[in-house]
Amino acid sequence: MPISKTIAAYEAKGSWIRKLFEEGLQMMRDGTGLPVYDLSIGNPELEPPPEFKRLLRGMIEDDAPGQHRYMSNAGYLETRQAVADSLAADHGIPFAADNVIMTVGAGGAVNVAIKALLDRGEEVICVAPHFVEYKFYIENHGGVMVVAPCAPGFDLDVDAIAAKITAKTRFVLITNPNNPTGVVYPQATLDRLGDLLRRESAKRERPIFVLDDAPYRKLVYDMDKCTSSFNGYENTLVATSHSKDLGLPGERIGFLAVSPRIDGWQKVVGAAVFCNRTLGYVNAPALMQRAVAGLQTVTVDIDWYRRKRDRLCAELKRMGYELVVPGGAFYVFPKAPGGDDVAFCQRLKGERVLAVPGTGFGSPGYFRIGYCVADEKIWGALPAFEKAIRAIRG
Amino acid sequence: MPISKTIAAYEAKGSWIRKLFEEGLQMMRDGTGLPVYDLSIGNPELEPPPEFKRLLRGMIEDDAPGQHRYMSNAGYLETRQAVADSLAADHGIPFAADNVIMTVGAGGAVNVAIKALLDRGEEVICVAPHFVEYKFYIENHGGVMVVAPCAPGFDLDVDAIAAKITAKTRFVLITNPNNPTGVVYPQATLDRLGDLLRRESAKRERPIFVLDDAPYRKLVYDMDKCTSSFNGYENTLVATSHSKDLGLPGERIGFLAVSPRIDGWQKVVGAAVFCNRTLGYVNAPALMQRAVAGLQTVTVDIDWYRRKRDRLCAELKRMGYELVVPGGAFYVFPKAPGGDDVAFCQRLKGERVLAVPGTGFGSPGYFRIGYCVADEKIWGALPAFEKAIRAIRG
Repeated sequence: MPISKTIAAYEAKGSWIRKLFEEGLQMMRDGTGLPVYDLSIGNPELEPPPEFKRLLRGMIEDDAPGQHRYMSNAGYLETRQAVADSLAADHGIPFAADNVIMTVGAGGAVNVAIKALLDRGEEVICVAPHFVEYKFYIENHGGVMVVAPCAPGFDLDVDAIAAKITAKTRFVLITNPNNPTGVVYPQATLDRLGDLLRRESAKRERPIFVLDDAPYRKLVYDMDKCTSSFNGYENTLVATSHSKDLGLPGERIGFLAVSPRIDGWQKVVGAAVFCNRTLGYVNAPALMQRAVAGLQTVTVDIDWYRRKRDRLCAELKRMGYELVVPGGAFYVFPKAPGGDDVAFCQRLKGERVLAVPGTGFGSPGYFRIGYCVADEKIWGALPAFEKAIRAIRG
Repeated sequence: MPISKTIAAYEAKGSWIRKLFEEGLQMMRDGTGLPVYDLSIGNPELEPPPEFKRLLRGMIEDDAPGQHRYMSNAGYLETRQAVADSLAADHGIPFAADNVIMTVGAGGAVNVAIKALLDRGEEVICVAPHFVEYKFYIENHGGVMVVAPCAPGFDLDVDAIAAKITAKTRFVLITNPNNPTGVVYPQATLDRLGDLLRRESAKRERPIFVLDDAPYRKLVYDMDKCTSSFNGYENTLVATSHSKDLGLPGERIGFLAVSPRIDGWQKVVGAAVFCNRTLGYVNAPALMQRAVAGLQTVTVDIDWYRRKRDRLCAELKRMGYELVVPGGAFYVFPKAPGGDDVAFCQRLKGERVLAVPGTGFGSPGYFRIGYCVADEKIWGALPAFEKAIRAIRG
C-alpha cells in the first residue's frame, strides 16, 4: 500500500458508503435502459439564473486585460464589497469588505476558518446529524471532532452542546439550514447558543467560535429570510458558497465572513487570508469572483424547490413515513422504516432509487433524500418509496 | 490574540518579508505619481492566448445544461483524457485519463499529493533555493521540511540529497524549471536522482516519491522541451497548473499527474482524489476544466519571455551582476552585490524597484527578479539596478 496510513484508514472506514455509490453508478450503466432515481447527492439540476450567463458573457466580451491574473489572496475588493453590503443588509450588522475573504467554495471556507483559529488537539463540537465531510475538515488541521446529539425535530440541543464543552473546545460548527435535515434553527435557539458560548468564553483566554456553514441560507421556504447566527453570537464566522443559491457547485466560488463584532476580527481575517494562501487554494477563481459580485441579490427560483418539498413531504407522509418538514435546503431526512437505515437504503437501491443512510451523517435510523433534481426523478421514485415501506410495515 | 498559535508564529516569522511588500504597495499609492517597478511577483502580465477566449465564448454560447455542476472529484473525463494524451506525447509514457486528477492550481496539486502519501512526522527533502510556500504545504499535513543545498549553477546536488535521506524520508520535492532560479535540471541529473531513490526505496516498505512542481514546464528557452522527471524515476508525481503556460493564475486550474510506472498507482490516484475532496477543494473549477481540455497543445508566446530574458541577463551582466542565465520560467536569481540580500533589496526599493531577497527562498546572498511584466517595467528598472551595484562596488 503506497499511500498514507491515515488516508488508507479513512478509505477503509468509508468503504461501505463508497460501495453503495459505486453500485448505484454501475446500475446507471447496466445496459437495461431502466431509469435510476438518484436522490443521493446535493448537485442541483437547476441551472444558474439567466443574470449569471449575461454577466459572464459581458465579462468575456469586455476583454479587459488582467481578468485572469492573481489578485489579493482575499479576493477582489469589488466582490468583497458587494458581499459585505449584502451581509450588512441581511443581518443588520456593519460588515465591510475587510470582513470577507473569497474562497474555493464553502469547503474551502470551513477549512480556512479551522486552520486559522484552531490549535492542534483542540475540539470542534458538531451536532448530529452533520455533513459527512466535517470529520475530515477538522482532522486536516489536527482538530478533534466531538459530536453532540440534536433536540427533537432536529433543532440544536444547547444543553447537549454545553455538556460537550471542555477546556479544549474551540468551535461549535453548525449548518443552518441543515444538511441533511433541511431544518432552519430558530433564532431563539441561536440566541441561547450565543448565551452559552458567551459565558464559556468569558472563562478562557480565546473565545469559542461559532462556525456556521451556510450554503443553503437563501433556500428557505417558510420565512422571509433565514435566521442569523451572526445575531445570536458575536464570535461567529459564516462559511458559504454560491453552489446552491446560484447553482454553481462545480465552479468552487464561496466566501468566509468574519463578524465585525469579534474582538480582534482583523487578526482573524489576517490569519484566514494567510491560510487561504498557504493551504494551496491561493484565491477563489477569478472569473467567478467577478461574476458573483453582480449577483448578490439574485438567487435561483426558490419555488422550483418549494414545490418539490411540498409534494414530496406530503406523499411520504401519506405513505406512512415519519419526517420533519424541512424549512430550507433541499433535503428531507425521514426515519428509516424498520430502523436499519443501511438495510433500508439497500432495499431502495433494489428499486433503482438511491438515497443516503443516516449513518453517514452520524444519525443511524434515518435516511436522506435530496430533491434538487428534475421532477421526473423525484416523482418517478415515489412508487419505490411506497413499495419499500409497505414491505416493512405490511 | 484570537488566532491559532501556529498561524501566529508563521505570521511573526514572515513579517519582515510582508513588511517589504507592504512598503512596496504603499509606494505605489504614495501620490508622487512616480512609477514603481514591481519585479517581485510571478503574476504574468501576458494575456491568455486568443484560443482561450474563443473556447470560453463558445462554451457560454453553447449553453448546454450542467456546465457548472459538480463532476467527479477527479475532474471531467474529457479534460483528464486531453491532459493524459499531452503527457504521453511529452514524456513517451502511456498516461491514461485515470493517471490525472484536475486540481485547484499547482498549489492544490502539491497539497493533495503530500496529504495522500505522507504520514505525520515523515520528511520532505527540498532543495534550496526553493519556492516559499513549500514549508507551509508540508507542515499542513504534519510533514517535516528538510532542506538540501544545490550544486553550483543551481543544479540539483544528488549527493547532498543523499546525505539528507533518513528512514523518515517520503518525498523529494523539486521544481523543474526552478523558481526562483529559472534553471532547468539536466536529464542526467534527474536520472541520477532516480538511481539514488531507486536504491533507497528498495530498502523500505513504501517508496520515496519525487514530487515535481512543474508549472513552468512549457516555458523553456534553449531546448525543444523540458527535461522529464517522469523519465528519471518511476515513483514520480507531477503537480502543475495552467497559471503560467496559459496565463491563468487567478483561475486556479491545474492537475496532479501520477506516473503509471508507480507500483500500485491506482491506490495513489484513489488517495489523491479522496484528498482533493476532503481537503475542501472538492474539484477544479468546472468552466476552466472544460476550457483547458482544448488547450493542451497551446501556450502563451514563449518569445515574449525569451526576449526579456536575453536582454535582462545581458544588461545585468554588463553592469557586473553575477548570475546563471535561466533556461526556463521567468525569473533570474543574481548574487546580491555586497552579499546582504535583504539590505540590497531595501536599496532597490529606495530606487522604486521591488525584488525578493533570496532569504525568502532559503538562499541568502541572492535576490529574485521576475520578468513576467511589461517591457517598460523591466527596462525602466535598469538604471536602478546599475545605480545600486555601483553604490556598492564603486
